[in-house]
Amino acid sequence: MHVVVPFAATDPKTRLESVLSPTERAAFARAMLADVLCSIVEAGREPTVVATAAIDPAELDLPTHVLESVSVAVDDRPLTDAVNARLPSKTDSGDNDGDTDDAVAVVMADLALATTDALADLFAAGGEVAITPGRGGGTNALVVRHPGFRVDYHGASYLDHRKIAEEVGASLETIDSFRLATDIDEPDDLVEVLVHGDERTRALATLRDFGFELERRDGRVGVARRGADDSTRER
Amino acid sequence: MHVVVPFAATDPKTRLESVLSPTERAAFARAMLADVLCSIVEAGREPTVVATAAIDPAELDLPTHVLESVSVAVDDRPLTDAVNARLPSKTDSGDNDGDTDDAVAVVMADLALATTDALADLFAAGGEVAITPGRGGGTNALVVRHPGFRVDYHGASYLDHRKIAEEVGASLETIDSFRLATDIDEPDDLVEVLVHGDERTRALATLRDFGFELERRDGRVGVARRGADDSTRER
Repeated sequence: MHVVVPFAATDPKTRLESVLSPTERAAFARAMLADVLCSIVEAGREPTVVATAAIDPAELDLPTHVLESVSVAVDDRPLTDAVNARLPSKTDSGDNDGDTDDAVAVVMADLALATTDALADLFAAGGEVAITPGRGGGTNALVVRHPGFRVDYHGASYLDHRKIAEEVGASLETIDSFRLATDIDEPDDLVEVLVHGDERTRALATLRDFGFELERRDGRVGVARRGADDSTRER
Repeated sequence: MHVVVPFAATDPKTRLESVLSPTERAAFARAMLADVLCSIVEAGREPTVVATAAIDPAELDLPTHVLESVSVAVDDRPLTDAVNARLPSKTDSGDNDGDTDDAVAVVMADLALATTDALADLFAAGGEVAITPGRGGGTNALVVRHPGFRVDYHGASYLDHRKIAEEVGASLETIDSFRLATDIDEPDDLVEVLVHGDERTRALATLRDFGFELERRDGRVGVARRGADDSTRER
């Protein structure tokens, strides 16, 4: 199984711009990428980062055994095209019966809560297409074993991917995982990292370095950021 | 195992008031409750609705075999108190070694995506306390087997429940389920019902009756409501 991790190397995580500077967004995005790569390697796979621009994995502060398992490919095409270029094709297996050993998994780089166990369950899923939905109709991770399946990340991709699987006659499995359903896109999502992030992860450490902490108010939970002047700015 | 389903019978789902009238909120809350009760019964359990005011389960349009398995208790105390009054106590089992057959599950009534499989996994979970976190640090469902454990739903209840379990020496399991992590509180949550709701569920049917539909815009997905004048109101 090939595991592909698409990564926007330039100006990532723009929907966090209200709470993080461009430099901070870049650092946080790389922290999440590093965590995802570690979890993939611990699950026994060798991930390829498909980045929109060159990145040096040595700068991700990965353990040696993880760094040795990671490769990088630069592909500046839109996400959908870059992923489709790496999915199983009929020529890979030499037949078109829908069965191929060249499974490809696609795991988004911003799944800050992804654990080795959750990813191992995904990689072991049956179905010629296995999808982990994200909140809001997105597709956070999938495994493709059918040579006719192609992705389309625009819009409600989870529904589109179900439809595409049906159209090409691929059996479908949906993976029910809160950890894999939680991609970190918006300020409210930072709560999930602070609540559920493993203490060893770079994403949690990075947010804490930036001064983020949980704040309990009105019976609900949000994030607050402690600034250099030691005052706390709510959001 | 006892299964408790707390239900706010009066003025439910106030955080949906920007998109639903009081009558609609009451109907939608009851639709979700009915779906949750069906899934619990299909998972082999007999739920007790702990309602803040009297409700008639016959008005929930339940299949006969589900209706026969459901009981209602009225308890107008705050959620935390009403649940704690029903958790295993030391006197239930006659010992205090942390092991009791009187397990109690608590399942929130607004888990519109809860399936029989997801609930069965929860009910079968190990651990003297098993918790399904919700988004934003909440606790959407739990199973309590330890007589010393008590709930506290105020604030970041997931973190509080972990801490309480540790304090009383209860082993803890966290259940990783997107379906059980998705409680329907706010307008944006309606997207999840429209994307992932089982076609047979009352919650999905109710939203569609109200005119809600998915709307794809700007590469993301929201909900729109088609009004009586056949115009579509975005939100």
